[in-house]
Amino acid sequence: MSLRHRLVGAARQRLKETLRPVVRRALAPSRSSLPASLWGLEFVPGRGLCLEGVSLAELTQRWGSPLHVVHLAALRRNVERFLAVPPGRAGGCEVYYSYKTNPVPGVLSFMHERGVGAEVISAYEMWLALQLGVPPERIVYNGPVKSDASIREAIERGIGLLAANHAEELDVFARHAAELKRRPRVAVRVSTGHGWTAQFGTPIAGGAALAAFRKARELGTLDVVGLHAHRGATIRTEAELEGFVAAVLDFTDTLHRELGLNLEVLDLGGSLCTPTVEHVEPRAWRLNQTFQRDLPAPDAAAALSIERYVARVVEQVESHFERRGRARPRIFLEPGRAMTGDTQLLLGRVHTLKAGPERTWAVMDMGINHAECVRNEYHQLLHVDRPEAQLAARPYTVVGPICTPGDTLYNAVRLPELRGGDTLAIMDAGAYCVPFATSFSFPQPAIIALDNGEERLLRRAETFEDQVAFDATQPPTAFRAAS
Amino acid sequence: MSLRHRLVGAARQRLKETLRPVVRRALAPSRSSLPASLWGLEFVPGRGLCLEGVSLAELTQRWGSPLHVVHLAALRRNVERFLAVPPGRAGGCEVYYSYKTNPVPGVLSFMHERGVGAEVISAYEMWLALQLGVPPERIVYNGPVKSDASIREAIERGIGLLAANHAEELDVFARHAAELKRRPRVAVRVSTGHGWTAQFGTPIAGGAALAAFRKARELGTLDVVGLHAHRGATIRTEAELEGFVAAVLDFTDTLHRELGLNLEVLDLGGSLCTPTVEHVEPRAWRLNQTFQRDLPAPDAAAALSIERYVARVVEQVESHFERRGRARPRIFLEPGRAMTGDTQLLLGRVHTLKAGPERTWAVMDMGINHAECVRNEYHQLLHVDRPEAQLAARPYTVVGPICTPGDTLYNAVRLPELRGGDTLAIMDAGAYCVPFATSFSFPQPAIIALDNGEERLLRRAETFEDQVAFDATQPPTAFRAAS
Repeated sequence: MSLRHRLVGAARQRLKETLRPVVRRALAPSRSSLPASLWGLEFVPGRGLCLEGVSLAELTQRWGSPLHVVHLAALRRNVERFLAVPPGRAGGCEVYYSYKTNPVPGVLSFMHERGVGAEVISAYEMWLALQLGVPPERIVYNGPVKSDASIREAIERGIGLLAANHAEELDVFARHAAELKRRPRVAVRVSTGHGWTAQFGTPIAGGAALAAFRKARELGTLDVVGLHAHRGATIRTEAELEGFVAAVLDFTDTLHRELGLNLEVLDLGGSLCTPTVEHVEPRAWRLNQTFQRDLPAPDAAAALSIERYVARVVEQVESHFERRGRARPRIFLEPGRAMTGDTQLLLGRVHTLKAGPERTWAVMDMGINHAECVRNEYHQLLHVDRPEAQLAARPYTVVGPICTPGDTLYNAVRLPELRGGDTLAIMDAGAYCVPFATSFSFPQPAIIALDNGEERLLRRAETFEDQVAFDATQPPTAFRAAS
Repeated sequence: MSLRHRLVGAARQRLKETLRPVVRRALAPSRSSLPASLWGLEFVPGRGLCLEGVSLAELTQRWGSPLHVVHLAALRRNVERFLAVPPGRAGGCEVYYSYKTNPVPGVLSFMHERGVGAEVISAYEMWLALQLGVPPERIVYNGPVKSDASIREAIERGIGLLAANHAEELDVFARHAAELKRRPRVAVRVSTGHGWTAQFGTPIAGGAALAAFRKARELGTLDVVGLHAHRGATIRTEAELEGFVAAVLDFTDTLHRELGLNLEVLDLGGSLCTPTVEHVEPRAWRLNQTFQRDLPAPDAAAALSIERYVARVVEQVESHFERRGRARPRIFLEPGRAMTGDTQLLLGRVHTLKAGPERTWAVMDMGINHAECVRNEYHQLLHVDRPEAQLAARPYTVVGPICTPGDTLYNAVRLPELRGGDTLAIMDAGAYCVPFATSFSFPQPAIIALDNGEERLLRRAETFEDQVAFDATQPPTAFRAAS
């Protein structure tokens, strides 16, 4: 490095250090952390944070670290809230859990036992739902890549709803239906202009979605019962929900007017938020990275709750069809993150602390290999052992075990003073942590459930042997010494 | 959506469409694709692209799709280039492959049989190297998270080099060494100010690295034989290499002067590029996303080759120590991407085409679940069936099977006209595709090797059953119908 580069680098560094406390104070977010009580956690001196009387730190001693912990009481509550009929209404919604969000059989079965159906997006997920005993009529099959075999199985078994991701898929459905001499219950996925669209759905704008419905009916072999729409971008406010639902309802009128179609099913997809999780804006990341300014914590109380979401959906749909004098269709919901997001936490241990001139790294045994979502979203990090101790003088950079600077969980986060061996909890690990997990250099962790203070293993940790179980057996290497 | 929003959105859309051809032409990169011949692929009419006479499309018919194909002849060449003694030199480098880059036993064993050692960063990877028959003295153990058990095993077995990621780790090594009454061969990892640093290494600047070496020797139980440094940021030019190596060599003088230390091992880490892969700059992404301007293809011929890299390293190190009149240390290299990156390709099929007003989506059976690296780097995409046909009128958006808009492999890429069922190849899939792979809704693909025209299975594809093999058996769900 040239002298000039060094000088410029040093000057910039000095400036950043000088500005850091000023920026941190001046631009401090109004809320920089969320209390452990939001998740039902209690601090017991000497035992640290406890859930249903069970010490989280002791869980890692019994089951290993890192460790996923599913809180079944919280999951039960979320299921009940989604399935409840809103006060003053004749009916509620039918709920299909988005398998891809947290595809753990023990979690899925728990929901199915309480009346939640399966929303699947691949041949594998449909197979899993059937394995778990979900009746075919309680399965919704979405997704842009459905194998021929899985479409045929769905048709033969009489799946509840087979949704065409794009208009082109209708021909595939029709061909299989004709060959099997069955008439599958089909929905057409549309895109509304709200949230994101990408490769999903046929746009209402411009008439493409109407043309797809027309075609679906003209094919003659499909029972076109449903309309599918998914906002995509997270729904956090009533306004976001209502704008989206209004666009869908508007299109049901078009379908009725143009095609005389009375929908049996209105599938409004998912997208409801987890109140304690929020996408972090680029500016907030930059301030956190450059000036160690705290990330803003979400306003959980202001977020649309499950109850309010269900009530608003039912109210809006019912009143729409009441005004039109048509029968209100069945409402399907496909929650993912709103159902399981806040019902699971990930525990990990501080492997070591590395002191640097500007910061202290807390090097954990868990990383982006287990919690990739932390790179884009606010997830509360809790000190399990001494949550009430005074905050350390400077923020920590919390990193994982895999050998890349990309394995940064928290660039600058304030925590009570850490020691090697301390346990930390990443909250809201029940959405997109498990499916995005990799076996990068380290085996994947176990998943346990906590059920009224009882611990139960849902998925054992991966072993070293598991990681190469599908490989052709390698004879011990004929190792040649390098010349 | 309000009328105002709609109007603004429509106007912006119209502007983008008008500007698109202008921007694409005016800012066209000088090189927008790389020829298939760079990888030894040949086009045979009627059979598509062939490697060693084997049709790639036929490979997916025999082994399934998606499919990783390892080209062993290319890997053999890379191994030989790394191990060759540069012309006019007495010795070359000792090479330790970075396991995390492509941890496939069939690939690793192939390298070990040809004299390449193992660079491991976790207890699992050390276990795997020993399983594969790598002699302990041919293993380098790096990484910020080494379990106590793995450190003890490394010491007991007499591992070649145990590298302290940070100064704090030296105490851990010393404690185990004292307990085991062994004297492990230790290196201290330093950071030079070149490339990235993050949680890795102890900085030379400010004297911390020197203090760490002093401490390592004073502990008394460690045999401090080596210095470890890793540039981190990719090395693509001689200047990048030389600046980094010069900083390391400068520090070896400090160690000699201050501590009288003559290093036995100089471990220069990895970071050498794959010539046909390059990090894509944010501006190039934005232009590609907004105006469908082609991504610039790397100038492969201008990139530092393996031969030149090895020759420059040896020359620089030898002449340094010659000038100082001290013995030249052994040089360790830890290539990852430069060794295996361009020796593997990923095949996948077009599941369906989805036509939109602005673009056509090619929906593939492979996605970021198999090729996450494509999101940050240029990777040549080849049309396997009709590579020489005329380019389609507009670029394709190539997406994967998992249900998220993030599953975009190529936002806008020009290809010959696609049909459903066509096979595409993502090139240079031999670095960081396999370790970053997930089982998100779809099982992971098989990996085969092509060896002089013979096909051999290295790793079978994951099955549905595999995905839940570690889960507690779930009794068929007592499914309760929703009220």
